[in-house]
Amino acid sequence: MMTLHGYWRSSASYRVRIGLALKGITVKHVAVNLRDGSQKSEAHLARNPQGFVPVLELADGTQLTQSLAILDYLDSISAYPELLPQDAVKRSKIRAASLIIAADIAPIQNLSVLKYIRAEHGQGDAAVTQWAAHWIESGFKGLETMARSYETTFLMTEVPTLFECCLIPQVYNARRFGVDMDTFPKLKAIDAACRELPAFIQSAPENQADALV
Amino acid sequence: MMTLHGYWRSSASYRVRIGLALKGITVKHVAVNLRDGSQKSEAHLARNPQGFVPVLELADGTQLTQSLAILDYLDSISAYPELLPQDAVKRSKIRAASLIIAADIAPIQNLSVLKYIRAEHGQGDAAVTQWAAHWIESGFKGLETMARSYETTFLMTEVPTLFECCLIPQVYNARRFGVDMDTFPKLKAIDAACRELPAFIQSAPENQADALV
Repeated sequence: MMTLHGYWRSSASYRVRIGLALKGITVKHVAVNLRDGSQKSEAHLARNPQGFVPVLELADGTQLTQSLAILDYLDSISAYPELLPQDAVKRSKIRAASLIIAADIAPIQNLSVLKYIRAEHGQGDAAVTQWAAHWIESGFKGLETMARSYETTFLMTEVPTLFECCLIPQVYNARRFGVDMDTFPKLKAIDAACRELPAFIQSAPENQADALV
Repeated sequence: MMTLHGYWRSSASYRVRIGLALKGITVKHVAVNLRDGSQKSEAHLARNPQGFVPVLELADGTQLTQSLAILDYLDSISAYPELLPQDAVKRSKIRAASLIIAADIAPIQNLSVLKYIRAEHGQGDAAVTQWAAHWIESGFKGLETMARSYETTFLMTEVPTLFECCLIPQVYNARRFGVDMDTFPKLKAIDAACRELPAFIQSAPENQADALV
């Protein structure tokens, strides 16, 4: 059995939980508490020198990092349901939309960046929230325009893909930072459609064993 | 023929130029001047609602965005040389290392983020440089540890892959922000090995038609 080292509120861990659930792959979950700094422990740095979650540990001990690389791996070992379609253009477009979230939004409102702007730039709670909301809204603006050009329930498809593995955790963060999702009606509708599905429900932060709710 | 809308100093454009050159694919290059705000023009937003470069326009007018998604597309239409190996674990590890650069480093030291911390947090030149260098060094630290665990010339291979398409543009930025590459000897060696290869030489920012050097 594989082991997922993650944290209930980490959006990268949440992405991988959704992918595993969509594929019906059961793993052992091990919590790495980001609030007490466990991600910088010697044990975790041995798993991932970057000190980030998630880490997917395979049965043979191989350790995989970076949520999108892990999801790609899952798609290569478990063909159905596909997280990425076979058509090269559609595949590239779904990857691109996923990267808007995973590269252009999430890392900029990551815990370590928020800590830096507090400590080094002397920013308080309001400015920190404004910062996070700003980058989420900037990214969602482009995504909303892209998403509206398709009539499908999910982005370009009638089944959730890699994109929805990324979107739903980001919408969860958007709400925490007070982003008004009514500004992004198509993304909001995709989020609502996903949150009715068992794979998304069981992967939600509040449904994890290590959740503090 | 395909058209690449890019900018000489954009590291995401630079990544795609390397991938195209490695594959021996010739494209028409169209410059989008990031310094005069051309990326926010109506014409460019029609290509990419996110207002970013690069955009790869296919012969049929299809527009692809996000450098990593474009490089994946190139790998699917042109099998040799492979930007990603076929082995699922190795593929995931090379993707993960690429994402450390494309997700966890580059977006945080992107022009729009640097503008924000100047305008909204009142940070001057020294603090902006320190910010960029900090995130590059944080990411390179984990990458250096990963890279040192392999004896190969490039990361896990004897030929450049998706990872080197990401690393060399990031090292270019690292030098601009005063990062001491001697701290990262393995990454420095990979960079030096790449910069001897024609594909990397022809893709370098200073060798582009729109370069201001």
